[in-house]
Parts: sequence; C-alpha cells; structure tokens
Amino acid sequence: MRHLLRMNDLPADEIMRILKDAERFKTGKSLLQETPKFVANLFFEPSTRTRFSFEVAEKRLGLNVLNFDASLSSVQKGETLYDTVRTLEAIGADAVVIRHPDDEYFTELQDSISIPILNAGDGCGHHPTQSLLDLLTIQQEFKRFEGLTISIHGDIKHSRVARSNAEVLKRLGANVLLSGPEEWRDPLNKFGQYVTTDEAIKTSDVVMLLRIQHERHQGENEGLTDYHRRFGLTLERENAMKPNAIIMHPAPINRGVEIATELVESRKSRIFKQMENGVFVRMAVLKRALESAKLNEEENTYAFYH
Amino acid sequence: MRHLLRMNDLPADEIMRILKDAERFKTGKSLLQETPKFVANLFFEPSTRTRFSFEVAEKRLGLNVLNFDASLSSVQKGETLYDTVRTLEAIGADAVVIRHPDDEYFTELQDSISIPILNAGDGCGHHPTQSLLDLLTIQQEFKRFEGLTISIHGDIKHSRVARSNAEVLKRLGANVLLSGPEEWRDPLNKFGQYVTTDEAIKTSDVVMLLRIQHERHQGENEGLTDYHRRFGLTLERENAMKPNAIIMHPAPINRGVEIATELVESRKSRIFKQMENGVFVRMAVLKRALESAKLNEEENTYAFYH
Amino acid sequence: MRHLLRMNDLPADEIMRILKDAERFKTGKSLLQETPKFVANLFFEPSTRTRFSFEVAEKRLGLNVLNFDASLSSVQKGETLYDTVRTLEAIGADAVVIRHPDDEYFTELQDSISIPILNAGDGCGHHPTQSLLDLLTIQQEFKRFEGLTISIHGDIKHSRVARSNAEVLKRLGANVLLSGPEEWRDPLNKFGQYVTTDEAIKTSDVVMLLRIQHERHQGENEGLTDYHRRFGLTLERENAMKPNAIIMHPAPINRGVEIATELVESRKSRIFKQMENGVFVRMAVLKRALESAKLNEEENTYAFYH
Repeated sequence: MRHLLRMNDLPADEIMRILKDAERFKTGKSLLQETPKFVANLFFEPSTRTRFSFEVAEKRLGLNVLNFDASLSSVQKGETLYDTVRTLEAIGADAVVIRHPDDEYFTELQDSISIPILNAGDGCGHHPTQSLLDLLTIQQEFKRFEGLTISIHGDIKHSRVARSNAEVLKRLGANVLLSGPEEWRDPLNKFGQYVTTDEAIKTSDVVMLLRIQHERHQGENEGLTDYHRRFGLTLERENAMKPNAIIMHPAPINRGVEIATELVESRKSRIFKQMENGVFVRMAVLKRALESAKLNEEENTYAFYH
Repeated sequence: MRHLLRMNDLPADEIMRILKDAERFKTGKSLLQETPKFVANLFFEPSTRTRFSFEVAEKRLGLNVLNFDASLSSVQKGETLYDTVRTLEAIGADAVVIRHPDDEYFTELQDSISIPILNAGDGCGHHPTQSLLDLLTIQQEFKRFEGLTISIHGDIKHSRVARSNAEVLKRLGANVLLSGPEEWRDPLNKFGQYVTTDEAIKTSDVVMLLRIQHERHQGENEGLTDYHRRFGLTLERENAMKPNAIIMHPAPINRGVEIATELVESRKSRIFKQMENGVFVRMAVLKRALESAKLNEEENTYAFYH
Repeated sequence: MRHLLRMNDLPADEIMRILKDAERFKTGKSLLQETPKFVANLFFEPSTRTRFSFEVAEKRLGLNVLNFDASLSSVQKGETLYDTVRTLEAIGADAVVIRHPDDEYFTELQDSISIPILNAGDGCGHHPTQSLLDLLTIQQEFKRFEGLTISIHGDIKHSRVARSNAEVLKRLGANVLLSGPEEWRDPLNKFGQYVTTDEAIKTSDVVMLLRIQHERHQGENEGLTDYHRRFGLTLERENAMKPNAIIMHPAPINRGVEIATELVESRKSRIFKQMENGVFVRMAVLKRALESAKLNEEENTYAFYH
C-alpha cells in the first residue's frame, strides 16, 4: 500500500521519482485528455440562485468547477482577498467568480490579477449578471428596450440591482420609474423618476420588484408589517397593470411582502423565467471571459467552437 | 482583460452581444456535447453515508452534481423550501435529493414541483433508500424475504428506519420482531411484535440494530450507560445468534453502545456491505426517477441505454 | 412523476425492480462508460491552497472528487475517523486525502484501511506534499540539493513544514540552517544548525520563511509586533541575500510579518511558483497511490497510460 504519510518514510529514490513525474505533469504530457479549463467560485456571502446558476453554466460549458466557501478556507486564517485569488490563479483557475460583501472589492484585484474576474455581487453596489438576465428577460418579451416604461419598486437605496438596472435601462432607451418608501430613496440614483407605487404600476410595461433585505437593515424596519399594503404588489394592484405588462423579481422573494403569494407564479410573472435566463447569461459571460483569456494567449481557435 | 465588474462599464453593443450569446445557449446550439443531466443534493442536516453515497451514484451514472448545503445558501435569508426547490428546477436540476429535519417536508412540494424528489430522510419519518439498501443486503444473503425472522433493536420510536423497514419487511412476508427499552416503543409501529432482546437475537435471521440518536433525545438518556449491557449486541449475545444469521446497522455506529466494537467488522456483520449496496440502490432509484422524467417528455430512448 | 418519498408508497413489484437494477449496477453492466476513480478529500481544518491544489490535481487526472467537510458530516454525530474513512472506502473511494488537527491521526488507519491515505497535513507533524513541492521548486532552480545552503526561518517548533523539510533536505545533501525566536526552537529538530536571522539570510541559497501561526499560539505572541524587524525578511535583509538566492514561503502569508509586502512577488520570490508546483506534485503522488492500488489488484495496465 503506497500511503503518503510522512516525508521521513519516503526513500530518496522515490522522492526523485515523484519529482520527475511532477515535472512531466507540468509539461502536460501523459495526460488522458487536454486539460479542461477551471473556474473558481468564491462566495463570501450565502447565495442559492447566483452560485448554482454559475455552477450550472460552468458545467454546461464543460468547465471544471472549484467551489470556494470562505468559511472553510484560509480566509479564516486572515488571508487577504488578493492573496486568495492570486493563489487560485497559481493553482490553475482560468477565471474566478466572486461575491463579496465589500463595495467594489475588485478594485484591489482588477489590475494585478491576470485571469478574468466575474463579479457575482459586491456589497450594495454591482451585480452585472443579475442585470444581464433581467435585460434578457425583457428582450425576450418585448424585442426592444427603447420606449418601454420600467418601474423599480422597493429598497432603491440598498439594492445592488436597482442602481445597475436603472442606469443600463435608461442607457438602452427605456423610461425608468422608481417607487417605494421615502426613506429608501437613493440620492445617487439619477436614472429614474420617483412616482407613487400605484402610478408606477399602472403605467409600466415591466414591474420590477426588489427584495426587502431584512438581513441588511435591522431595526429600521418597524413599519414593515404594512409594507405589502402600502408599497407591495397586491392582487388589487396587479389588476391595474397593463394587459401585456410583466412582473419581475430577483429573488429570494419575501412572499406576502413585496408580492402577494398568489402572484409569484401567475400569468404575468417572469420570476422563474429570470432564473432560467440566469444560466444562459452566465454561460455567455463565461464564454466572453475565457475567449479574452485565449485572445491574450494569442491563439485563434477556441474550445467552444471547434 | 474582459473582467465583468459593473454594468456601467459595459458598452451597449457588448451587452447586445452577450444577450445574443445567451439566446444561442438557450437553444442548446454551439455546445461541445449534449447537456448532461443535473441532480441537486439538498442536505439540511449533516450526513456522510447518504450524501456521499448519492453523490457517488450520481457520478457513476454520468450525472452532474450540485451540492447544496443549507448553511451556505439563501435559506439563511429565510427562503422557503418550495422556492428553493423551484429555483433549482428553474436553474436546470433534473432531479433533487433532499434530507430535511421536518416530517414529510415533501407534502408541500410533491404536486407543485415538476422534477422528481428523492427523499434522503425526513424528520423521524421516512428514509426509503436506507430501507432499499437493507432489502438488497438481505436479499443477497437469503435470496428471499418470505419466512425470514428479522428483529429491529433500539430506539424504535424515533427511528426513520424502524417504521419503514418493519412495514415493508412484513409486506414482503418476513416475520418482524421489535426490541429495546420500554420507553422507546412506538405505538404507531404495528408491523412487529415486541419481545426481549435475548429472545429476539436467538431467533432472528437478521439482527437489525438502530443507532441511539444522542442528538435527538437530550436529557432522557440518563440510563444510557448500561444500554449496551441491557439492550445492545454484546459478544455474549452474538454467540447466541443462529449460525447463518447476519448483523445489520444503518450507521453511524456508537461503538460499545448498540454493538460491541469487536463485532462491527466480524464475520456475521454486513454493516459495510450495507454501505456498498447503498450506492447501487441509489443508482437504481436515480435511474427510475430520470426515466420517468424522460417518459414525461414523451421520448423513447434514454441516455443510460444508448 | 416517480418521486421516491416513502417506502409504504412503493409497491412490492417496483421494489423488486429497483433491487434488480441495483444488482445490475453492482456488476458494472449497463453503464455508459468505465467507472472513473473516486478520491475523497477530508479536511478537518480550513485550507485553501492544499485543498484546491489536490482538487485541481485530481480533476486534471480525470478522477472524480468527493469533498468532505467535517462540519457538514456525521463527524458532527461523533463518528470516529476510522468509521468515516471506512465508510468512504465502502462507498467507493479509491484513495483518501486527509488533513486533520491531530498528530499522526493516520496511525489508527494505515494498517486497517485498504485504500491509500494521502496525508495533507497532521497536527504540528507532517505535511509531505508541502515538502515535495518545496523540493520541486528548489530542484527547478538549482538542479540539485547537494551542497545548497537552505535556511528555515520562524516558528520552527510548531511548524509542520520545518521538521519535514529539515530532515529531507539534510538527507538529500543540503546544509540546513534554522533561525527565529529563541522560544520557538524545536529540541526535536536535529537536522539543522541554529544561527542568527542576518547570518542565515546572508549565506543561504534558499531563504525558507514559515508562517506565524496566530491561530495556534494565542497569548504567547506579545512581542510579535516587532517580529518583522527582528526576524522577518525586511527589504534591507533582502538586499543582503546572495544574487541567485530565492525566497520561499508555504503561505498563507502574513504580509509585513514574515516578509515585507513588497517582496512577496519580487524577482527572488518563488512563493506563487511553489503553489503552481503543488498541483504537479499532488498529481504525482495521486498517480503513485492509484498505481499501487492497481498493482494490488494485479492488473498490468493503468488508466493514466493507455
């Protein structure tokens, strides 16, 4: 039995044989197949949709997946984010997907890491794949963005999604409305116009609900019990929607808060459609990331199209 | 370097290119191979045997595995089980394996989820793959169930395994005996007859031990130190077993409580055999589940038999 | 829909069909492809480098990976290490990689487990793959060990790496120097000679820094703030190194403690090179382990070289 237990058990000739094999593996020789690409998923916050959606996307593309959960790693020993990502790069990751609670955690990484970073959400800031899947869902429905009225409802101030979506939708020609409690207005979000919940719902082609993030604001939520009645999508408000308008929500959903339970899977709802689209959008950005990596290596062919 | 960091960094033409690629991925075009099937493993309780046994079974069948640990997911944010499973379905899971501490957690799921649910243990109720692997182990030994005497020992009341096994063994024609401390008798278990430990062991073809679940009953276990002497499989009791009788235990084992340490891997023990069989039984139920999914899609051929 | 929810829902004929399928799977028939090998990674302590490096190595060799995190397993229910490993063996693991906080945890396993155990670090004792990757890095640089002067700096007493490396380097013909705080000298490490930090750095071909393990010694670290000045690799000390000497560190790095931040990725540093080499060395020891397993089965051909 060739256990590997202690160095002092290993005879020198066996050590040399191992080193020789290691060198051969380094050249890529004597492997069964071309080495598949590796993507590391680094999640410093809990997530279901984003994490699994990326994992499914990666596996559908034939990529190898390294799932890194911060709670089980050397981050516990105080390792910096830079050193963690640099380590994954050294170990062979071809791209890295990161969700992190710090705003723009990637500023310290983007110029010094030589593999693509795919932002799966940072603090209260950015969540580009969520925006992209929202765009895909809208495009599938209306074939355009120009001229659509899209209202975003809820905690505009603390939402990763609200700012990104408002900006890009306006840039693509949509008319953006914002709605929700006064104290959650976002002075930095200049891309939409504040209106009442009822007005927003009546005039929108897309009613985009945001999640009330209980875990982010504790204590300030006293009046929340009547959030649904005052700002949520009730059955009554749904009746006032335009006939072809759709309902969107990034999930996880607080049933009975942002939206009446009965509406989650109703005819107008695209909530689970959004999740489906999340996989395709993530396949597309992974392809984009790894193509760029290939381009950097100045190769012309690419595995996805051989 | 094509990082993906913020939506507002992405030019509109690049957004459109990503959306176009996402649509193409949706059609399944431009993929290297046929998309493999995905199975999600959702474990809301710690497990070694069941979880890994399912994972090995899935990988041997060439399926893709999504390991969902509740502690790292949006369940932390209060997402319901229904929404979590529905999400995994939307993301592309073709079947879902669930262990959950709530009795019959699946009642809220079974009619509304359109992918098969494989129950990997619920509360104190059901654990069908454990029963099936027990049946396989007995069948391998005796080639029949009819007429066998099978005794179940220990905490009948709180055991997932005891009720399922007693019911199915009786149904298949075996004679079921139950044994153990008075206070752990189960008034709902009408499938066997209560006898003393010594009598059960002397007359059984199969001595099926249950795990004392320290983590489920706290405080009621005072007299437990002498459990082994009074109700456990001691070396002495093993001597009184019929010559061809076998010992079974679902594990994890409390050595020296349910069973003397020396007997765990003894000639009569099928404990590790049971674990081996667990993989084959789980392959069989996964095949059954995914065949049904295929049948629902009205397709005649099936990947496992191409 | 063929859910699998309760045994009492399953008709006897369907149970029999499942058992028959399970038996067929046991023979290996009706599988799409030859069953790939499985390696289980058991980490009882947090780790980034070692864990992912093993996982990448395993996947590059085309092996199936089972990631076992102690916090999510039956170890929580008090299962012994022996029973856990025996279980993984029964379930189908062909080799097992273990990191465990207990010194020589493997003594209770090595004679009773029939699959190879790859030690990924035990307590303060052994960490052979770390030593092997260090050796590979030195060999790549100098093409020899004989006659090299290699100094090991820091917490000699509590380091897994220090003792293993000192022993094997001396055995391979190198001259080993040890350096660091008086209270961290290791009376059991007879393979090197203690010198001052400045002298060690001036005369070494390889300056091998150890990590200050905050998490292992709490309370004894009062004077640690000036560790860098007194014992660390400062910019000034780096200037005194021989022109072709190299810097090594097993990581994770405490920047500004063992080494000045500016030196981590400097010209002399091989720190990230070591991590790269870790993958190749682990491929080599996995190959060695699985070849031996094959030899035990008396087969002549081996998957890696078909």
